[in-house]
Amino acid sequence: MVHSEKVEVLIEALPYVNRFYKQIIVIKYGGNAMTSEELKEAVLYDILLMKSVGMLPIIVHGGGPFISDMLGKLEIESEFVDGIRVTTEEAMEVVEMVLAGSVNNDIVKKFNHIGGRAIGISGMDDQFLKVKKAQSDSADYGYVGEIEDIEVDLIRQLIESDYVPVISSVGMGEDGKSYNINADTVASAIAGKIEADKFMLLTDIEGVLLDRNDPDSLVSHLSKKEAEDLIAQGIISGGMIPKVECCLDAIKQGVRAAHIIDGRMKHSLLLELFFDMGIGTMITNEKEKAHAD
Amino acid sequence: MVHSEKVEVLIEALPYVNRFYKQIIVIKYGGNAMTSEELKEAVLYDILLMKSVGMLPIIVHGGGPFISDMLGKLEIESEFVDGIRVTTEEAMEVVEMVLAGSVNNDIVKKFNHIGGRAIGISGMDDQFLKVKKAQSDSADYGYVGEIEDIEVDLIRQLIESDYVPVISSVGMGEDGKSYNINADTVASAIAGKIEADKFMLLTDIEGVLLDRNDPDSLVSHLSKKEAEDLIAQGIISGGMIPKVECCLDAIKQGVRAAHIIDGRMKHSLLLELFFDMGIGTMITNEKEKAHAD
Amino acid sequence: MVHSEKVEVLIEALPYVNRFYKQIIVIKYGGNAMTSEELKEAVLYDILLMKSVGMLPIIVHGGGPFISDMLGKLEIESEFVDGIRVTTEEAMEVVEMVLAGSVNNDIVKKFNHIGGRAIGISGMDDQFLKVKKAQSDSADYGYVGEIEDIEVDLIRQLIESDYVPVISSVGMGEDGKSYNINADTVASAIAGKIEADKFMLLTDIEGVLLDRNDPDSLVSHLSKKEAEDLIAQGIISGGMIPKVECCLDAIKQGVRAAHIIDGRMKHSLLLELFFDMGIGTMITNEKEKAHAD
Amino acid sequence: MVHSEKVEVLIEALPYVNRFYKQIIVIKYGGNAMTSEELKEAVLYDILLMKSVGMLPIIVHGGGPFISDMLGKLEIESEFVDGIRVTTEEAMEVVEMVLAGSVNNDIVKKFNHIGGRAIGISGMDDQFLKVKKAQSDSADYGYVGEIEDIEVDLIRQLIESDYVPVISSVGMGEDGKSYNINADTVASAIAGKIEADKFMLLTDIEGVLLDRNDPDSLVSHLSKKEAEDLIAQGIISGGMIPKVECCLDAIKQGVRAAHIIDGRMKHSLLLELFFDMGIGTMITNEKEKAHAD
Amino acid sequence: MVHSEKVEVLIEALPYVNRFYKQIIVIKYGGNAMTSEELKEAVLYDILLMKSVGMLPIIVHGGGPFISDMLGKLEIESEFVDGIRVTTEEAMEVVEMVLAGSVNNDIVKKFNHIGGRAIGISGMDDQFLKVKKAQSDSADYGYVGEIEDIEVDLIRQLIESDYVPVISSVGMGEDGKSYNINADTVASAIAGKIEADKFMLLTDIEGVLLDRNDPDSLVSHLSKKEAEDLIAQGIISGGMIPKVECCLDAIKQGVRAAHIIDGRMKHSLLLELFFDMGIGTMITNEKEKAHAD
Amino acid sequence: MVHSEKVEVLIEALPYVNRFYKQIIVIKYGGNAMTSEELKEAVLYDILLMKSVGMLPIIVHGGGPFISDMLGKLEIESEFVDGIRVTTEEAMEVVEMVLAGSVNNDIVKKFNHIGGRAIGISGMDDQFLKVKKAQSDSADYGYVGEIEDIEVDLIRQLIESDYVPVISSVGMGEDGKSYNINADTVASAIAGKIEADKFMLLTDIEGVLLDRNDPDSLVSHLSKKEAEDLIAQGIISGGMIPKVECCLDAIKQGVRAAHIIDGRMKHSLLLELFFDMGIGTMITNEKEKAHAD
Repeated sequence: MVHSEKVEVLIEALPYVNRFYKQIIVIKYGGNAMTSEELKEAVLYDILLMKSVGMLPIIVHGGGPFISDMLGKLEIESEFVDGIRVTTEEAMEVVEMVLAGSVNNDIVKKFNHIGGRAIGISGMDDQFLKVKKAQSDSADYGYVGEIEDIEVDLIRQLIESDYVPVISSVGMGEDGKSYNINADTVASAIAGKIEADKFMLLTDIEGVLLDRNDPDSLVSHLSKKEAEDLIAQGIISGGMIPKVECCLDAIKQGVRAAHIIDGRMKHSLLLELFFDMGIGTMITNEKEKAHAD
Repeated sequence: MVHSEKVEVLIEALPYVNRFYKQIIVIKYGGNAMTSEELKEAVLYDILLMKSVGMLPIIVHGGGPFISDMLGKLEIESEFVDGIRVTTEEAMEVVEMVLAGSVNNDIVKKFNHIGGRAIGISGMDDQFLKVKKAQSDSADYGYVGEIEDIEVDLIRQLIESDYVPVISSVGMGEDGKSYNINADTVASAIAGKIEADKFMLLTDIEGVLLDRNDPDSLVSHLSKKEAEDLIAQGIISGGMIPKVECCLDAIKQGVRAAHIIDGRMKHSLLLELFFDMGIGTMITNEKEKAHAD
Repeated sequence: MVHSEKVEVLIEALPYVNRFYKQIIVIKYGGNAMTSEELKEAVLYDILLMKSVGMLPIIVHGGGPFISDMLGKLEIESEFVDGIRVTTEEAMEVVEMVLAGSVNNDIVKKFNHIGGRAIGISGMDDQFLKVKKAQSDSADYGYVGEIEDIEVDLIRQLIESDYVPVISSVGMGEDGKSYNINADTVASAIAGKIEADKFMLLTDIEGVLLDRNDPDSLVSHLSKKEAEDLIAQGIISGGMIPKVECCLDAIKQGVRAAHIIDGRMKHSLLLELFFDMGIGTMITNEKEKAHAD
Repeated sequence: MVHSEKVEVLIEALPYVNRFYKQIIVIKYGGNAMTSEELKEAVLYDILLMKSVGMLPIIVHGGGPFISDMLGKLEIESEFVDGIRVTTEEAMEVVEMVLAGSVNNDIVKKFNHIGGRAIGISGMDDQFLKVKKAQSDSADYGYVGEIEDIEVDLIRQLIESDYVPVISSVGMGEDGKSYNINADTVASAIAGKIEADKFMLLTDIEGVLLDRNDPDSLVSHLSKKEAEDLIAQGIISGGMIPKVECCLDAIKQGVRAAHIIDGRMKHSLLLELFFDMGIGTMITNEKEKAHAD
Repeated sequence: MVHSEKVEVLIEALPYVNRFYKQIIVIKYGGNAMTSEELKEAVLYDILLMKSVGMLPIIVHGGGPFISDMLGKLEIESEFVDGIRVTTEEAMEVVEMVLAGSVNNDIVKKFNHIGGRAIGISGMDDQFLKVKKAQSDSADYGYVGEIEDIEVDLIRQLIESDYVPVISSVGMGEDGKSYNINADTVASAIAGKIEADKFMLLTDIEGVLLDRNDPDSLVSHLSKKEAEDLIAQGIISGGMIPKVECCLDAIKQGVRAAHIIDGRMKHSLLLELFFDMGIGTMITNEKEKAHAD
Repeated sequence: MVHSEKVEVLIEALPYVNRFYKQIIVIKYGGNAMTSEELKEAVLYDILLMKSVGMLPIIVHGGGPFISDMLGKLEIESEFVDGIRVTTEEAMEVVEMVLAGSVNNDIVKKFNHIGGRAIGISGMDDQFLKVKKAQSDSADYGYVGEIEDIEVDLIRQLIESDYVPVISSVGMGEDGKSYNINADTVASAIAGKIEADKFMLLTDIEGVLLDRNDPDSLVSHLSKKEAEDLIAQGIISGGMIPKVECCLDAIKQGVRAAHIIDGRMKHSLLLELFFDMGIGTMITNEKEKAHAD
């Protein structure tokens, strides 16, 4: 590249460094970005760069495939009802052990190994994620929880001490038991409670497409109202709906911007954050905000 | 009890409250106190009381029986050489998962359920427990580690924020891998590095007995020199030796007093701490110190 | 005592240590507890223990018998009208000299001699206790004062510097003169103004008795309303009335709990404070509070 | 006075305000300035002005005439040996009561009445003035003390809280008893220990006179060495010697300047402090310092 | 002068030292006091004394004669319309250069040379003085500005760092250009915005005279209302009007007292500040305030 | 540019943001970058970006061409001896007025107009740049100064308050007069005294060329020793020598890296700072440091 091109990139990107300084960014980490070793490394490196220029990232993760794998090895059966894993006490012990013991530690180790300072926590620590048993008419899901209250003191202390919290989506009930909860929901709720500046949802899709078969139909910025209308009109449909609703929940709780980002593209976090024209879909309360605000 | 007796207990115990205020107490938690539900509850309640009167307890734990159990379920073989579990990569994944995911979370949950504020951590968090592969002429132990360095910043921050850290004995190597380490050693080394005032080793013995068959031969206070002499003379022998040496290591690194306590007796921590005549064996650098100093 | 009994006392008492930490406790010191050398020593030792576990005691005292004695020696006559000592200028000089010079210094010396850090003050210091001449239709009481204003800055600074203030009940008028005031009233008003957590009135009675001749009729806890009713019904009568009213005044000014305690019983302060079933009468705004709250 | 004269006084005096800001000034208050009501008022007003422009005055006082008077009224005999009052236990009770109860309170009240914020203390408070029994071959002086140690924490806190400490010269022995000590000595020792900038000794003489019968022979500035020489040569003699030695003690302990001032002249403190040519005798370590330094 | 006279001056002046401590005093410096070398020196020495006793002076200046002189040398014509210098771009460059480069630096240098710590600033620094082009029906004044906004952060930081700000009356427009503004107006507006305690306007008149030909008709204190009435009645007239209105503006914006002072009299600042009967005219919101309040 | 290229630039540049955070960068501003309006704008924008990502820039400037111009207009002659402008008192007044009044204000205004927060100062402010008359055998240079002492308190306070100081190269002598000094020297000395991380010298050359006629012979990194050798060997010659020596002076006083940069290239500051291969010549104490360290 010639000098003028490099300067041009810099003059575009540097003002974002200033804008994002000390901003809290909650990243829901999952999908391919979590199972491919190459993508995993790129994502964690992006987060390390974000931290190094003064942003305050928080990582939230689930780990469905790893849980299924271990349940299989231990020959514990678990069925899905309404898309939810019915979780017996025996299964829950495995869920907790895998999420908080294997998946979480793996992220923490990899991040610290490239020079970061991560701390792994789960909802039992300081009992920060209080849940109650999820109720449903159709079935007893067992140890599946709904969020009752989130105490972000611990998370806030960790980021103020310059750590990157890595949070596994296990909560604690009033009965002193662990409960399994949806990681997207946990991430969005934490973002809301801690008044994050951004919520970034790493997925296995490009973002919001007006035509699901045409990648060029990606919408790069939606207002809350526009997103709700697209759902109502059926243009946003299928598996895209819960992703968009998860973003809308974060927005409603005060997060300034929520992003759906393609976790299958290397360095998608950097591209979305530091350039005027990002690569995913940003949803904000009002439309007049600049793209990467 | 009549008034005067209650007052008498209080007048004996209250000065210790003052003396122990803001003192750091590292407790190695293990043995029966960890496997019996009744003892577990009593120990955690004692620690809650210690915290409530201003002491700064830190819990360190291992979890051998739980590891063996899970290895069995997963049909992974592991043999012992020189009393050390030879740990393959496959086994290490289980060790980490069980210690950091099951045992640690179980302590944290129980402590928080009775009103405490515990945070579970392991050596990978902030990479605070740096280890290297243990070397031996007799065998390759696999992922068994020796302590290389301990960074107590994270632990110090947690206790200054009024949390009780619960630490599982897994360390991290320069290769970014997890290693299994002896929990007594980890506890003693943490106590030394953080300049703890006390190191309390919960065991399944009464303390140091001059005659191993006579519980009345318990020695309630030993100087460093006396302990070393008793080992040299063979009076301290067998499984008692590593326990005493673990205490001596803590003393040598600056801990003010190390205690071997019978974890099989309910509330043994309180009895050792708050009464002039404790119930276990205290080892200090010099003898002239008062018992519960 | 056996181990389990000692542990039981501890488990009962220790939670109070936590609850009372940094609580301000105003103690009106007088009666037998002030004239018997043995009781004096026990009371001051109790206060030393209270301080040592983090409570913030404040001592307020009068000293009628000592004043009478010195007036006698100097052959200065002083008569009582309406139970109040008519105080001439000449007598007032003696009152001030005895209270602030002898009685106060005696308490300070004894407390410091057993290891405490007391500072003696009186209402002239920083002019913290502003009074006006007490008015009455029946007589001119001379230099007898009523409280006009209390500035607790000085007292607050002393307790924040870890001193125990010992306060003699002499106030200062706008005319720059000293005035004698009732010590119970001063203690109660200081407790109110400094927003004390407890006001403890050491007296020569057991507490509130439903039947004045039956010590077993002691009421261990009264709400404000109950106390007022008992006075209205004449069950609380005689010398007990001003004691209870003094407590009610403290409660009305925001003190959380007021206690009438038998100063004739050794260590009555400890017994009232640290055990579920105290030994005197506690008055609180509402009844639902726990005894030693 | 015309404008230019007033400006001239101001231009002379204002730089001292700056120089003395936050300087600690220990004033030994005694002699006529303590017994004449008119002088007493002028001295306390001077100290109030000193405080108001940012100086940190500390008042130390004795009270011989008042003690003798009360001992007389109570018909307690006390004889003088070597110029020292032999003090029985009975007499000591009176000494303490008069100094700490009457004289001290009188100064505190008068100072606070004109708008100051004084706090009266004596050596028993925080046990700050530790003494031992004075030993002598010629006689047993009884409760007469020599200074063993001074803890100036309390005094320092008071001046940092903007109070003016008023200190009576009573100390406390290891036996828990009060002892009488010479007030000049106490004042000089406090000045030394608190590293005062100035020690001002109010006396009933003009200052150091080369010819005791000629007030015009006043020496306005002496170096430590010159003062010692004048004593050796007998030019400083009689009652002047202990006054000069008291100043020399302060200098030796690090006080920057000691002043002997005529307490019989109204506003002598102001005149000595704020004008290039003061009115008493200043003693400093070296001569080259400016007069009012 | 005899002792009693000097003491008298001191007793009159010292209480003002206390009253003025840490008070912000904005001084408009101009007229003869700026052109006579002797007066310049006396004024800066007065300000140095003010600073040395804890006041926080701020100097604001213009410099008409110096500007005219340089415009003359450079043969740039500039005419006056409505008493306002019509300022072309070419002239404005000279105005800025002379005020911010010559006059300001000259004051700063002289003040620092006698021991002060001055910092010269103008409205461009931190863009603290935002102006817009002055509008008029009668003429286009060119680069003459009206105050739009004042940001006193920079000034506040300088005085908190113990500097004396010296401010030249040049402002900055939204167009990034410099504008000339009336220095009296700037000084008064800064005094108002920074909530100064005093605004002192050095002029070439004695103060407000009831009879312009009789210096003895000086009014030493006026309330806001009285000043307005005197203007309405025509007693205050001519060049005196803008001076008084400038003071009234300061008062209306919250300055506690505004003073018109004769800059032709040496040390007029000291005389006005430190004596009960000042030498100029003080204007306050209400009359009941003491003269030098 | 495609995504991967933009990410590549970012991944190269972002680590420098982290490395330079809170680093002090002294920039000597001069040459073409100061006279061309287009370059001036680009330089100030670069400095604004540096500030926005957390760097602490300090600007030092001279202004020879502007001085010559004004001296011409005022018909004041000034000759050059040894390359130094002989400066009479009359000329010095112009130098001071032009540098501190015109050039400095112009930079401040332009920087603040694009959103910065600059404060203009010169050596008279707080007398921070103390100079003495430059001595020479060949001539009397008049008011030309040599640096005697630099007090960086003021500059440090300004950068800590998030201002960008703009410093004109005028100093103050003990005689209270202004002196002209070489701006490169002032910049280098300030960088040394304030322990700057970088000193960046904007010049009208590409950097150090091994062959003065071949731009491709640019050396991008020199150690101190190499630079000294190149001078000794005559390879660095002519006008390049004082530029390199100025950098070496900064290095010797502790600056971590000095850079000679081509001020004629737009955004040369950014290119030198944020890319592994900069565009000018960096000189460091030792060679092993990375280019942009």
